[in-house]
Amino acid sequence: MQRQEIVISGSGGQGVVLGGIIVAEAAAIYEDRFATHNQSYGPEARGGASKSEVIISDGAIHFPEVENPDILVALTQEAVDKFAGTVKPDGILITDTMVKKLPAKGEYKTYVLPIRATAEEVRGQIVTNMVTLGALVVITKIVGLEALKQAVLARIPKGTEAINMQALEAGMKIAEKEL
Amino acid sequence: MQRQEIVISGSGGQGVVLGGIIVAEAAAIYEDRFATHNQSYGPEARGGASKSEVIISDGAIHFPEVENPDILVALTQEAVDKFAGTVKPDGILITDTMVKKLPAKGEYKTYVLPIRATAEEVRGQIVTNMVTLGALVVITKIVGLEALKQAVLARIPKGTEAINMQALEAGMKIAEKEL
Repeated sequence: MQRQEIVISGSGGQGVVLGGIIVAEAAAIYEDRFATHNQSYGPEARGGASKSEVIISDGAIHFPEVENPDILVALTQEAVDKFAGTVKPDGILITDTMVKKLPAKGEYKTYVLPIRATAEEVRGQIVTNMVTLGALVVITKIVGLEALKQAVLARIPKGTEAINMQALEAGMKIAEKEL
Repeated sequence: MQRQEIVISGSGGQGVVLGGIIVAEAAAIYEDRFATHNQSYGPEARGGASKSEVIISDGAIHFPEVENPDILVALTQEAVDKFAGTVKPDGILITDTMVKKLPAKGEYKTYVLPIRATAEEVRGQIVTNMVTLGALVVITKIVGLEALKQAVLARIPKGTEAINMQALEAGMKIAEKEL
Protein backbone atom coordinates (compact mmCIF):
# COMPACT_ATOMS: atom_id res chain seq x y z
CA MET A 1 0.00 0.00 0.00
CA GLN A 2 1.22 3.46 -0.90
CA ARG A 3 0.25 6.70 0.75
CA GLN A 4 -3.35 6.86 1.98
CA GLU A 5 -5.02 10.05 3.14
CA ILE A 6 -7.92 9.95 5.57
CA VAL A 7 -10.07 12.77 6.90
CA ILE A 8 -12.44 12.29 9.83
CA SER A 9 -14.81 15.22 10.25
CA GLY A 10 -17.74 15.94 12.49
CA SER A 11 -18.64 18.14 15.40
CA GLY A 12 -17.04 18.73 18.79
CA GLY A 13 -17.84 16.06 21.34
CA GLN A 14 -17.72 13.21 18.83
CA GLY A 15 -14.06 12.54 19.57
CA VAL A 16 -12.87 13.21 16.05
CA VAL A 17 -9.40 14.36 17.11
CA LEU A 18 -8.76 11.32 19.26
CA GLY A 19 -10.18 9.09 16.52
CA GLY A 20 -7.59 10.39 14.07
CA ILE A 21 -4.76 9.98 16.55
CA ILE A 22 -5.74 6.38 17.19
CA VAL A 23 -5.72 5.52 13.47
CA ALA A 24 -2.28 7.13 13.06
CA GLU A 25 -0.90 5.33 16.10
CA ALA A 26 -2.39 2.00 15.05
CA ALA A 27 -0.47 2.25 11.78
CA ALA A 28 2.80 3.64 13.14
CA ILE A 29 3.19 2.04 16.55
CA TYR A 30 1.47 -1.30 16.02
CA GLU A 31 2.10 -1.89 12.32
CA ASP A 32 5.49 -0.25 11.89
CA ARG A 33 4.38 2.04 9.10
CA PHE A 34 4.68 5.81 8.86
CA ALA A 35 1.83 8.09 9.83
CA THR A 36 1.02 11.73 10.50
CA HIS A 37 -1.88 13.25 12.29
CA ASN A 38 -2.92 16.84 11.87
CA GLN A 39 -5.71 19.14 12.82
CA SER A 40 -6.32 22.79 12.29
CA TYR A 41 -8.49 24.85 14.56
CA GLY A 42 -9.94 28.18 13.51
CA PRO A 43 -12.24 30.34 15.55
CA GLU A 44 -15.01 28.08 14.22
CA ALA A 45 -13.63 25.36 16.53
CA ARG A 46 -15.65 27.07 19.23
CA GLY A 47 -18.80 26.42 17.22
CA GLY A 48 -17.97 22.79 17.04
CA ALA A 49 -16.79 21.80 13.54
CA SER A 50 -13.96 19.34 13.94
CA LYS A 51 -11.60 17.75 11.41
CA SER A 52 -8.77 15.34 11.87
CA GLU A 53 -6.34 14.44 9.07
CA VAL A 54 -4.33 11.24 8.95
CA ILE A 55 -1.78 10.08 6.40
CA ILE A 56 -0.51 6.51 6.43
CA SER A 57 2.32 5.36 4.23
CA ASP A 58 4.84 2.58 3.90
CA GLY A 59 7.56 5.19 3.43
CA ALA A 60 8.52 8.49 5.05
CA ILE A 61 5.90 11.22 4.67
CA HIS A 62 7.35 14.43 3.30
CA PHE A 63 4.16 16.37 2.67
CA PRO A 64 1.96 15.92 5.72
CA GLU A 65 -0.97 17.85 4.33
CA VAL A 66 -4.13 16.26 2.98
CA GLU A 67 -5.62 17.91 -0.09
CA ASN A 68 -7.77 15.13 -1.52
CA PRO A 69 -8.54 12.33 0.87
CA ASP A 70 -8.75 8.74 -0.28
CA ILE A 71 -11.17 8.24 2.58
CA LEU A 72 -13.49 10.85 4.06
CA VAL A 73 -15.60 10.22 7.12
CA ALA A 74 -18.15 13.03 7.45
CA LEU A 75 -20.47 12.67 10.41
CA THR A 76 -22.54 15.83 10.06
CA GLN A 77 -24.29 17.74 7.29
CA GLU A 78 -21.77 20.55 7.71
CA ALA A 79 -18.86 18.13 7.28
CA VAL A 80 -20.39 16.61 4.15
CA ASP A 81 -21.11 20.03 2.67
CA LYS A 82 -17.59 21.22 3.36
CA PHE A 83 -15.47 18.21 2.45
CA ALA A 84 -17.33 15.77 0.19
CA GLY A 85 -16.14 17.69 -2.87
CA THR A 86 -12.50 16.97 -1.98
CA VAL A 87 -12.66 13.14 -2.05
CA LYS A 88 -10.52 11.46 -4.72
CA PRO A 89 -12.52 10.01 -7.67
CA ASP A 90 -11.66 6.45 -6.66
CA GLY A 91 -12.06 7.27 -2.97
CA ILE A 92 -14.56 6.42 -0.27
CA LEU A 93 -17.05 8.60 1.60
CA ILE A 94 -18.45 7.26 4.85
CA THR A 95 -21.28 9.34 6.21
CA ASP A 96 -24.14 9.11 8.67
CA THR A 97 -27.81 8.31 8.16
CA MET A 98 -28.63 11.58 9.99
CA VAL A 99 -27.07 13.51 7.10
CA LYS A 100 -30.07 14.35 4.97
CA LYS A 101 -28.56 16.08 1.95
CA LEU A 102 -25.99 13.85 0.33
CA PRO A 103 -23.87 15.16 -2.53
CA ALA A 104 -24.79 14.19 -6.09
CA LYS A 105 -23.37 10.77 -6.77
CA GLY A 106 -19.67 11.26 -7.48
CA GLU A 107 -17.18 8.77 -8.81
CA TYR A 108 -16.21 7.78 -5.30
CA LYS A 109 -18.05 5.13 -3.34
CA THR A 110 -20.45 6.25 -0.59
CA TYR A 111 -21.48 4.36 2.55
CA VAL A 112 -24.31 5.74 4.66
CA LEU A 113 -24.24 4.17 8.12
CA PRO A 114 -26.12 4.75 11.39
CA ILE A 115 -22.92 5.69 13.21
CA ARG A 116 -24.35 8.38 15.46
CA ALA A 117 -27.50 6.44 16.34
CA THR A 118 -25.36 3.42 17.21
CA ALA A 119 -23.14 5.53 19.45
CA GLU A 120 -26.23 6.86 21.24
CA GLU A 121 -27.46 3.31 21.75
CA VAL A 122 -24.15 2.08 23.18
CA ARG A 123 -23.34 5.01 25.45
CA GLY A 124 -23.82 8.44 23.89
CA GLN A 125 -22.12 10.93 21.62
CA ILE A 126 -18.78 10.42 23.36
CA VAL A 127 -18.25 6.99 21.77
CA THR A 128 -19.02 8.20 18.24
CA ASN A 129 -15.31 7.97 17.45
CA MET A 130 -15.16 4.30 18.46
CA VAL A 131 -18.19 3.38 16.35
CA THR A 132 -16.58 5.33 13.51
CA LEU A 133 -13.27 3.48 13.85
CA GLY A 134 -15.00 0.11 13.84
CA ALA A 135 -16.88 0.98 10.65
CA LEU A 136 -13.80 2.54 9.06
CA VAL A 137 -11.62 -0.49 9.56
CA VAL A 138 -14.22 -2.91 8.19
CA ILE A 139 -14.86 -0.84 5.05
CA THR A 140 -11.35 0.37 4.25
CA LYS A 141 -8.98 -2.04 6.02
CA ILE A 142 -6.73 0.96 6.42
CA VAL A 143 -5.21 -0.65 9.52
CA GLY A 144 -5.56 -4.12 10.96
CA LEU A 145 -8.19 -4.76 13.61
CA GLU A 146 -5.65 -5.95 16.17
CA ALA A 147 -3.49 -2.85 15.70
CA LEU A 148 -6.58 -0.68 16.00
CA LYS A 149 -7.68 -2.33 19.23
CA GLN A 150 -4.22 -1.95 20.76
CA ALA A 151 -4.09 1.71 19.77
CA VAL A 152 -7.54 2.29 21.27
CA LEU A 153 -6.59 0.64 24.55
CA ALA A 154 -3.43 2.73 24.79
CA ARG A 155 -5.38 6.01 24.44
CA ILE A 156 -8.57 5.61 26.46
CA PRO A 157 -8.92 6.17 30.20
CA LYS A 158 -8.57 3.09 32.40
CA GLY A 159 -11.93 1.64 33.32
CA THR A 160 -13.53 2.49 29.96
CA GLU A 161 -12.15 -0.48 28.01
CA ALA A 162 -15.37 -2.50 27.92
CA ILE A 163 -17.64 0.28 26.72
CA ASN A 164 -15.15 1.44 24.10
CA MET A 165 -14.66 -2.08 22.74
CA GLN A 166 -18.42 -2.52 22.65
CA ALA A 167 -18.76 0.69 20.61
CA LEU A 168 -15.96 -0.39 18.27
CA GLU A 169 -17.62 -3.72 17.63
CA ALA A 170 -21.01 -2.11 17.11
CA GLY A 171 -19.37 0.05 14.43
CA MET A 172 -17.90 -3.02 12.78
CA LYS A 173 -21.31 -4.67 12.68
CA ILE A 174 -23.16 -1.81 10.98
CA ALA A 175 -20.39 -1.70 8.35
CA GLU A 176 -20.34 -5.44 7.74
CA LYS A 177 -23.98 -5.29 6.67
CA GLU A 178 -23.02 -2.91 3.85
CA LEU A 179 -20.22 -5.01 2.36
CA MET B 1 1.29 38.36 18.49
CA GLN B 2 2.10 36.94 15.09
CA ARG B 3 2.67 33.27 14.29
CA GLN B 4 4.36 31.27 17.04
CA GLU B 5 5.69 27.77 16.54
CA ILE B 6 6.04 25.39 19.46
CA VAL B 7 7.49 21.88 19.58
CA ILE B 8 7.01 19.59 22.59
CA SER B 9 9.25 16.53 22.42
CA GLY B 10 9.97 13.68 24.75
CA SER B 11 9.34 9.98 25.05
CA GLY B 12 6.18 7.91 24.91
CA GLY B 13 4.21 7.88 28.13
CA GLN B 14 4.93 11.53 28.92
CA GLY B 15 1.73 12.66 27.23
CA VAL B 16 3.46 14.83 24.66
CA VAL B 17 0.74 14.42 22.00
CA LEU B 18 -2.07 15.36 24.37
CA GLY B 19 0.05 18.24 25.69
CA GLY B 20 0.31 19.70 22.21
CA ILE B 21 -3.39 19.27 21.54
CA ILE B 22 -4.25 21.08 24.75
CA VAL B 23 -2.07 24.07 23.87
CA ALA B 24 -3.64 24.29 20.40
CA GLU B 25 -7.16 24.01 21.80
CA ALA B 26 -6.48 26.56 24.53
CA ALA B 27 -5.54 29.08 21.84
CA ALA B 28 -8.24 28.24 19.31
CA ILE B 29 -11.25 27.30 21.37
CA TYR B 30 -10.75 29.44 24.47
CA GLU B 31 -8.90 32.44 23.01
CA ASP B 32 -10.43 32.62 19.54
CA ARG B 33 -7.12 32.46 17.74
CA PHE B 34 -6.00 30.07 15.01
CA ALA B 35 -4.00 26.96 15.81
CA THR B 36 -2.78 23.73 14.26
CA HIS B 37 -1.52 20.60 15.89
CA ASN B 38 0.56 18.04 14.09
CA GLN B 39 2.54 14.96 14.85
CA SER B 40 4.47 12.57 12.70
CA TYR B 41 5.05 8.99 13.69
CA GLY B 42 7.77 6.91 12.11
CA PRO B 43 8.64 3.35 13.02
CA GLU B 44 10.71 4.90 15.81
CA ALA B 45 7.41 5.75 17.52
CA ARG B 46 7.51 2.20 18.78
CA GLY B 47 10.81 2.98 20.52
CA GLY B 48 9.21 5.89 22.23
CA ALA B 49 10.44 9.18 20.77
CA SER B 50 7.49 11.55 20.61
CA LYS B 51 7.09 15.01 19.11
CA SER B 52 4.10 17.29 18.96
CA GLU B 53 4.04 20.47 16.87
CA VAL B 54 1.76 23.42 17.54
CA ILE B 55 1.34 26.65 15.62
CA ILE B 56 -0.65 29.52 17.09
CA SER B 57 -1.47 32.63 15.11
CA ASP B 58 -3.81 35.58 15.11
CA GLY B 59 -4.57 34.88 11.44
CA ALA B 60 -5.28 31.82 9.31
CA ILE B 61 -2.39 29.35 9.14
CA HIS B 62 -1.49 28.44 5.58
CA PHE B 63 1.70 26.48 6.20
CA PRO B 64 1.03 24.18 9.11
CA GLU B 65 4.55 22.78 9.30
CA VAL B 66 7.12 23.79 11.89
CA GLU B 67 10.67 24.13 10.65
CA ASN B 68 12.24 26.33 13.30
CA PRO B 69 10.32 26.53 16.54
CA ASP B 70 10.13 29.72 18.54
CA ILE B 71 9.73 27.48 21.57
CA LEU B 72 11.12 23.99 22.00
CA VAL B 73 10.32 21.80 24.99
CA ALA B 74 12.70 18.83 24.98
CA LEU B 75 12.21 16.47 27.89
CA THR B 76 14.84 13.83 27.07
CA GLN B 77 18.46 13.73 25.95
CA GLU B 78 17.33 12.29 22.63
CA ALA B 79 14.88 15.15 22.08
CA VAL B 80 17.53 17.75 22.90
CA ASP B 81 20.07 16.08 20.59
CA LYS B 82 17.57 15.91 17.75
CA PHE B 83 15.80 19.23 17.93
CA ALA B 84 17.82 21.83 19.89
CA GLY B 85 19.62 22.81 16.68
CA THR B 86 16.33 23.87 15.09
CA VAL B 87 15.31 26.55 17.63
CA LYS B 88 15.12 30.12 16.28
CA PRO B 89 17.98 32.40 17.39
CA ASP B 90 15.65 34.50 19.53
CA GLY B 91 13.70 31.43 20.65
CA ILE B 92 13.37 29.53 23.90
CA LEU B 93 14.50 26.03 24.86
CA ILE B 94 12.87 24.44 27.91
CA THR B 95 14.55 21.23 28.96
CA ASP B 96 14.78 18.92 31.94
CA THR B 97 17.37 18.68 34.69
CA MET B 98 17.72 14.98 33.83
CA VAL B 99 19.18 15.95 30.44
CA LYS B 100 22.90 15.80 31.08
CA LYS B 101 24.40 17.00 27.81
CA LEU B 102 23.04 20.40 26.93
CA PRO B 103 23.90 21.98 23.59
CA ALA B 104 26.61 24.66 23.46
CA LYS B 105 25.03 27.94 24.44
CA GLY B 106 23.13 29.16 21.40
CA GLU B 107 21.55 32.53 20.87
CA TYR B 108 18.24 31.29 22.20
CA LYS B 109 17.39 31.33 25.88
CA THR B 110 17.55 28.03 27.80
CA TYR B 111 15.58 27.03 30.88
CA VAL B 112 16.53 23.82 32.69
CA LEU B 113 13.70 22.72 34.97
CA PRO B 114 12.99 19.62 37.11
CA ILE B 115 9.87 18.80 35.07
CA ARG B 116 10.18 15.01 35.14
CA ALA B 117 11.15 14.84 38.81
CA THR B 118 8.20 17.07 39.67
CA ALA B 119 5.84 14.83 37.69
CA GLU B 120 7.17 11.80 39.57
CA GLU B 121 6.57 13.57 42.88
CA VAL B 122 3.01 14.54 42.01
CA ARG B 123 1.86 11.26 40.47
CA GLY B 124 4.26 9.72 37.98
CA GLN B 125 5.37 9.98 34.36
CA ILE B 126 1.79 10.26 33.15
CA VAL B 127 1.42 13.84 34.41
CA THR B 128 4.66 15.01 32.78
CA ASN B 129 2.58 16.84 30.17
CA MET B 130 0.68 18.80 32.82
CA VAL B 131 3.86 19.86 34.62
CA THR B 132 5.25 20.83 31.20
CA LEU B 133 2.20 22.92 30.33
CA GLY B 134 2.36 24.75 33.66
CA ALA B 135 6.03 25.61 33.12
CA LEU B 136 5.46 26.49 29.46
CA VAL B 137 2.71 28.97 30.15
CA VAL B 138 4.65 30.75 32.90
CA ILE B 139 7.81 31.11 30.81
CA THR B 140 6.31 31.85 27.40
CA LYS B 141 2.78 33.17 28.06
CA ILE B 142 1.90 31.50 24.77
CA VAL B 143 -1.68 31.09 26.01
CA GLY B 144 -3.46 32.50 29.03
CA LEU B 145 -3.62 30.43 32.20
CA GLU B 146 -7.41 30.41 32.25
CA ALA B 147 -7.64 29.20 28.64
CA LEU B 148 -5.06 26.53 29.39
CA LYS B 149 -6.97 25.26 32.42
CA GLN B 150 -10.22 25.10 30.47
CA ALA B 151 -8.53 23.20 27.65
CA VAL B 152 -6.99 20.76 30.14
CA LEU B 153 -10.32 20.11 31.84
CA ALA B 154 -12.00 19.45 28.47
CA ARG B 155 -9.43 16.79 27.51
CA ILE B 156 -8.72 14.78 30.67
CA PRO B 157 -10.78 11.88 31.99
CA LYS B 158 -13.42 12.72 34.57
CA GLY B 159 -12.19 12.11 38.08
CA THR B 160 -8.61 13.18 37.32
CA GLU B 161 -9.16 16.93 37.56
CA ALA B 162 -7.54 17.42 40.95
CA ILE B 163 -4.34 15.54 40.22
CA ASN B 164 -3.93 17.19 36.81
CA MET B 165 -4.44 20.68 38.23
CA GLN B 166 -1.97 19.86 40.97
CA ALA B 167 0.60 18.83 38.35
CA LEU B 168 -0.08 21.97 36.29
CA GLU B 169 0.44 24.20 39.30
CA ALA B 170 3.61 22.33 40.31
CA GLY B 171 4.93 23.06 36.80
CA MET B 172 4.09 26.74 37.17
CA LYS B 173 5.96 26.89 40.47
CA ILE B 174 9.22 25.42 39.20
CA ALA B 175 9.12 27.87 36.29
CA GLU B 176 8.34 30.91 38.42
CA LYS B 177 11.59 30.34 40.32
CA GLU B 178 13.53 30.80 37.09
CA LEU B 179 11.98 34.10 36.02
